[in-house]
Amino acid sequence: MIAEILSTGDEVMLGDLVDTNSAYLCDTLKNLGIRVSQITAKGDDLDAIADTLVRISSRADICLATGGLGPTRDDLTAAACARAAGEELILNPDALASMEAYFKRRGYPLSEANKKQALLPATATMLENRRGTAPGFTVRINRCRFYFMPGVPLEMKAMTQNAVIPHIRETRGLDQDLAIRRFTVFGLPESVVDSNLKAFPTRFPGIRLGFRASFPCIEVKLVQAGPDGQAAGRQTDDLDAAGQWCIDRLENKVISLKGRSIQEEVGRLLIDKKQTLAVAESCTGGLISSLVTDVAGSSDYFLLSAVTYANSAKENILGVGHDTLVAHGAVHEETAREMAAGARRAAGSDWAVSTTGIAGPGGGSDDKPVGTVCIGLAGPGIETARRYTFTFGDRGMNKQIFAAMALETLRRQLVK
Amino acid sequence: MIAEILSTGDEVMLGDLVDTNSAYLCDTLKNLGIRVSQITAKGDDLDAIADTLVRISSRADICLATGGLGPTRDDLTAAACARAAGEELILNPDALASMEAYFKRRGYPLSEANKKQALLPATATMLENRRGTAPGFTVRINRCRFYFMPGVPLEMKAMTQNAVIPHIRETRGLDQDLAIRRFTVFGLPESVVDSNLKAFPTRFPGIRLGFRASFPCIEVKLVQAGPDGQAAGRQTDDLDAAGQWCIDRLENKVISLKGRSIQEEVGRLLIDKKQTLAVAESCTGGLISSLVTDVAGSSDYFLLSAVTYANSAKENILGVGHDTLVAHGAVHEETAREMAAGARRAAGSDWAVSTTGIAGPGGGSDDKPVGTVCIGLAGPGIETARRYTFTFGDRGMNKQIFAAMALETLRRQLVK
Repeated sequence: MIAEILSTGDEVMLGDLVDTNSAYLCDTLKNLGIRVSQITAKGDDLDAIADTLVRISSRADICLATGGLGPTRDDLTAAACARAAGEELILNPDALASMEAYFKRRGYPLSEANKKQALLPATATMLENRRGTAPGFTVRINRCRFYFMPGVPLEMKAMTQNAVIPHIRETRGLDQDLAIRRFTVFGLPESVVDSNLKAFPTRFPGIRLGFRASFPCIEVKLVQAGPDGQAAGRQTDDLDAAGQWCIDRLENKVISLKGRSIQEEVGRLLIDKKQTLAVAESCTGGLISSLVTDVAGSSDYFLLSAVTYANSAKENILGVGHDTLVAHGAVHEETAREMAAGARRAAGSDWAVSTTGIAGPGGGSDDKPVGTVCIGLAGPGIETARRYTFTFGDRGMNKQIFAAMALETLRRQLVK
Repeated sequence: MIAEILSTGDEVMLGDLVDTNSAYLCDTLKNLGIRVSQITAKGDDLDAIADTLVRISSRADICLATGGLGPTRDDLTAAACARAAGEELILNPDALASMEAYFKRRGYPLSEANKKQALLPATATMLENRRGTAPGFTVRINRCRFYFMPGVPLEMKAMTQNAVIPHIRETRGLDQDLAIRRFTVFGLPESVVDSNLKAFPTRFPGIRLGFRASFPCIEVKLVQAGPDGQAAGRQTDDLDAAGQWCIDRLENKVISLKGRSIQEEVGRLLIDKKQTLAVAESCTGGLISSLVTDVAGSSDYFLLSAVTYANSAKENILGVGHDTLVAHGAVHEETAREMAAGARRAAGSDWAVSTTGIAGPGGGSDDKPVGTVCIGLAGPGIETARRYTFTFGDRGMNKQIFAAMALETLRRQLVK
């Protein structure tokens, strides 16, 4: 089955709006075992949209379209569809009744501008909009079944779930979900992950291997697919074997077998062990702490982060030795070690990690270039620090890789 | 001139990734006075990409394409382009030299997988990638000049600015910038901004008004456009008048007249005043601190953030009264006030802001629902706190709006 997505609206073509609808619809169709072959976006232009609909109608089996169903003169989808189908626009009684009910519930009168939204191509069937005024509709043109939905994400999502998916399932006889495995990799560039898994397609021809780089991690995803690229049901044994084969080839760089982030894994491990965490940050500037607290329930194990940008704060809050700072400077393993130990002491936590380094763009030297970070770790029977140098050359990326490396240092210690 | 955008990658077609690149490129072209007529997205399929390139080559004058330049076997853009152009792939010496230099800087050897990235269509000219390994390239097929860039947003944006825009400007004779005004709004929903500025198109017909929501702020943009939608030069008087008209209608919610973020404005004001900042965070979990330190040069004014999730940390590090916590709980104006005062004292800073609240999903009560935050402010002659309740119901959004509100509280004090 060939599926396409069409997104219309000047706001998309002018870059004023990021088209998140198409990703949502691709993901939704994927979960039905349907792969999208093309996404197209066009501006609010009657001829251009009608022309695009005609093209799609001759090459796709289904098309999910969003946008252009509102009451303004920019909203041209129904007219373009009628032209592409060679039909008249007529006042659709179901659409009118649905809008009247919607306005009545809200205590507003139905305006003439809104009534225009009930003008649909003659052979169209209305799709109910539970979240807004604009009715959707479905119509067949040539070989293709089109579903037209509003562009407002909330309305579009509700209509997809309530009307479009049930219609697709019913007419296409789809009653099973895809089997999927995902895991998270940290510490290998994408090129190395790919090269280590090069033999995969030969070894597991029925399974599709995909990567998604989400800096600084890579998500590896395995999808069970039948010979026609469609869902092949729940043959999860093969998928488990394929997953293990990948993990064996990625050394110890797989940080989660469930697609979790490093901070989610750290949280899970700390909850399992009933242990607590403190953080001392310099160059990461609160990012470690913000990542840790992005995880719901982190208040069960996260006690404190001291973001000590100033040396005086390192001394006063964390008890880093004045002599240490004078002798070695802020960016040094000994400073990092004392920061971690100080955070652990100040918070009374089981564990503490620390960062001190140079995120850039300024502040680097030959000895300690931008990208240098010292990561400290303190915990039961351990107090240590190590220096790393990264070469991304970007302040934002450096903060992210420093934070991930610190959390990964702790995670490795926790799984020992 | 007809311009198109092509985005390639299975991750887009599978809905694993929202295509933000296309919106960025549409916006960038719009700023050159070029309007995009179609955006197309295709999966990693050699035939499908080559076929799409041929179609675009016969209907567009320029095409900006992203994705598929990496070292893996999913990266098929160069091969598809060569097929569409009827050319061989050859080892491009400029691309190879650029990659060798990139790897040398980072102290890694160039792998065979990476060398593949230097295989470009015979008539292609390399576009330098300053942020990653994959070189871009430009090539002409039929009537269309194609620019191929990596899909990683950071690399794509740098290449657009450094190589693509200069090439388009030079070859198309676009030597003037569009006159543009942008300002940042915080504290009004997009629908209210839109409604307050409804009369704009009638009032200023030669200027295009656009919004971009970047939660929790909205960027308002005014572009001087000629009758044909192209750049109309530097008639900045009109633009200044239009900007002032908008600002008057957005009450006091315009936080920057230069499109700066709240943290950038706060940083600029602190540097002007030669003053320093400390932060005490509970529910924002380090996000305020991370936002403040995203600004290069923040070490000049940012001294400390104490992320005190545990009550004991609030007492020990910030000196919040044990009695205060017992009497009022952690989420209370008095706790917020003492946190801010304590951070200011501990850091010896001029200013301090604090947050304590409930980001969710758990922890809410009838009295203090999820979305409640108390924001404290301490500075020369001021020690205050105020409670707000937001109804986003999402942990991530709550952290962001709490952090923005705290920084905005400080900014308003600094501009008094």
